[in-house]
Amino acid sequence: MAVHLAKGARDHLPAAMHARLQVFETVREVFTRYGFEPLETPAFERIETLMGKYGDEGEKLIYRILKRGAGGERGEVDLALRYDLTVPLARVVAMNPGLRLPLKRWQMQPVWRADRPQRGRFREFYQCDVDTVGCASMAADAECVAVVHDSLVALGFRDFTIRLNHRQLLRVMVEHLGIAEQETSVLIAVDKLDKIGREGVSEELLGRGISQGAIEGLWSLLAHTGVEGLEPMQTALGEPAREALDQVREVLAHAEALGVDCARVLFDPTLARGLDYYTGPVFEAVVTEPKIGSIGGGGRYDGLIGMFGKNAIPAVGVSLGVERILVVMEELGMLTEVQTRTQVMVTVFHEGLLEESQRAATAFRRAGVPTQVWLQGGKLGKQLKRASGLGIPWAVVLGSQEIDAGVVKLKDMVGGEQFECSLSEAVARVTG
Amino acid sequence: MAVHLAKGARDHLPAAMHARLQVFETVREVFTRYGFEPLETPAFERIETLMGKYGDEGEKLIYRILKRGAGGERGEVDLALRYDLTVPLARVVAMNPGLRLPLKRWQMQPVWRADRPQRGRFREFYQCDVDTVGCASMAADAECVAVVHDSLVALGFRDFTIRLNHRQLLRVMVEHLGIAEQETSVLIAVDKLDKIGREGVSEELLGRGISQGAIEGLWSLLAHTGVEGLEPMQTALGEPAREALDQVREVLAHAEALGVDCARVLFDPTLARGLDYYTGPVFEAVVTEPKIGSIGGGGRYDGLIGMFGKNAIPAVGVSLGVERILVVMEELGMLTEVQTRTQVMVTVFHEGLLEESQRAATAFRRAGVPTQVWLQGGKLGKQLKRASGLGIPWAVVLGSQEIDAGVVKLKDMVGGEQFECSLSEAVARVTG
Repeated sequence: MAVHLAKGARDHLPAAMHARLQVFETVREVFTRYGFEPLETPAFERIETLMGKYGDEGEKLIYRILKRGAGGERGEVDLALRYDLTVPLARVVAMNPGLRLPLKRWQMQPVWRADRPQRGRFREFYQCDVDTVGCASMAADAECVAVVHDSLVALGFRDFTIRLNHRQLLRVMVEHLGIAEQETSVLIAVDKLDKIGREGVSEELLGRGISQGAIEGLWSLLAHTGVEGLEPMQTALGEPAREALDQVREVLAHAEALGVDCARVLFDPTLARGLDYYTGPVFEAVVTEPKIGSIGGGGRYDGLIGMFGKNAIPAVGVSLGVERILVVMEELGMLTEVQTRTQVMVTVFHEGLLEESQRAATAFRRAGVPTQVWLQGGKLGKQLKRASGLGIPWAVVLGSQEIDAGVVKLKDMVGGEQFECSLSEAVARVTG
Repeated sequence: MAVHLAKGARDHLPAAMHARLQVFETVREVFTRYGFEPLETPAFERIETLMGKYGDEGEKLIYRILKRGAGGERGEVDLALRYDLTVPLARVVAMNPGLRLPLKRWQMQPVWRADRPQRGRFREFYQCDVDTVGCASMAADAECVAVVHDSLVALGFRDFTIRLNHRQLLRVMVEHLGIAEQETSVLIAVDKLDKIGREGVSEELLGRGISQGAIEGLWSLLAHTGVEGLEPMQTALGEPAREALDQVREVLAHAEALGVDCARVLFDPTLARGLDYYTGPVFEAVVTEPKIGSIGGGGRYDGLIGMFGKNAIPAVGVSLGVERILVVMEELGMLTEVQTRTQVMVTVFHEGLLEESQRAATAFRRAGVPTQVWLQGGKLGKQLKRASGLGIPWAVVLGSQEIDAGVVKLKDMVGGEQFECSLSEAVARVTG
């Protein structure tokens, strides 16, 4: 019987899992250090909770679940798989009025989108999000920037930039240029800058009926990048840009106080971030090599969390693109290839001595050392070869001679040395 | 807009998540200590991979996913949500002939069953499984027993029993009693012993046409429990029972060598374990209080893993009932109620000093201490009260006076003491 995975889905075999767990653990550690608390929501939501939230294009990608029983026979649907972690968060906030705000939560769970599979993009993938709900202070935005920064540093990235912009700036610009009614078109076109370049964007804007003069005006505004661009941008746009630019400055100042290396943070007015629910600062982390685009980003979205309730609730969050991060780390050789976390292989001299080997393994395990006992028979040489092939750093040999002498042979599979010592000395050597 | 969870689904809010993560972490640590390696499979499988694997009753509980696009409009289904972790494991083994056997893998992922929700039973729940694939030695079975034993001990359970039986024993018994063709009926009836008692089982067997004499014979065989029951059972059943009883003895001996407290392991020939795919030793962990039944169990199933391939592959595994374990631990007061893992709340004296507080928080975070900076304004008293309400053990106060003096005030929120010291001394006190 031929058997296949679902399209766009992956198994994560042990070697891949070790890398994934290491990345998740590192990121979780950073989230926790910043005082974010864990949340999990179910894989499926009622269909009406998800519908109307992701636009027509997004909605097509949602996996819908048939009702069980007779309704399902008729093709009726009542549930859908989680598409992101933000709408479920909004639902949780609406359903739990007792939750104290601000709520700082992290969430790492898979989401499902029936997207066209491509490099680093799958139909099931983990999102790793932190969000602060119920806080309007730019201190919360800066924490999100700091979390991305610290996560990438903790993962070992040396070459990344965090682009920072403010969603209101674009609105002020299009108003300034007299093309306010085309704000969405401009947003969509500018969002493609990385892909189609400046000329492509200009062409698209022309095609959408924006004048050559306005386009030139737009480019000259967008040229004010970096901290040094804030002042000229302020001068060019005047009072309407003050709040946005002040907030950008605030985020930068707070981020610095939070230990962010601000040489890595670039004020970049061309940063659009596709999603139209952002309302304030937006940010995005990019690596220069390989060319894979954003590996994490987010922003302030003060209108979304309140969607299921009566009141608007300010919120800011950031999502780490862990699947892309894993792709990048692999390409850059940043992942230590680990096939096993087992530290000790206790060989079995012959079946009659199996329990002696099990007892030895127990001593290592009680000291917290991941330990395997050889399970499948065969000669000692084969056992040692397999241990070495798996990258297990230590092997224990325990034959009648050793048992009679009350010792074990401990083999260093990397250095090649061999020690004859008591079991407790062997445990001490491995743990020490 | 009223908003609801899907039926039988749960959100895990931070306090619950801390408990869950603690349990998962503990169990994962035990799995790793025994040399099991991590595996994850996708939430959904092709529908044909899951169909025909769980019996008619099981199949009704499977969540089926509509095709995207036109097929879905016609009610066509191509995917289904994972129902357990065993069939996906069999698929992984079939699809990856390069995997070296024995494969020892652990997997902790949610599964979905449209079951009637009840206490400790949900439609989405985690399974935590270890399985050893490709090994016929009873050493592997004993490791599964040891993993359950060590997991329960590590979680703090003091009062549990691991029941141990062998699937072939029941077959030998029914043959011995001359009711071999009713083996399944007997299995089903005996499996209900905990629920309907001995009289209920007898009645059911009578109803299924089994003679009073055979039923009495069955009860007298089933009375041979404990290690001391092995010999009389052997005598009563003779040679046909030898392999099964020898394997039970082997499992016990290996388990003892693996450090299992065998006073907790009870040979119990009434243990049926419903699933009919078991072929060898079966085992199940039960707690006496509260009466919730099995909190983990498994056994040898040599016919299942090969289902997608050409060859039978021996396998043995055990599944920890983490959701039930969490219910039991909560009822027994074994879970430390933790609302937050934050260790330090850095208060904010007034907005102008926010960045000073952020810098102080950075020092704690760099030392690995989970730290929050107060985000939402308000007086110092309110800030300290909130920190204390959340159970955060330390607070830092940083006003102009402290800043001028180059110190911070560190408050022990439990003991009530207060220290005025340098920031690095404060960090040392919290970490030390």
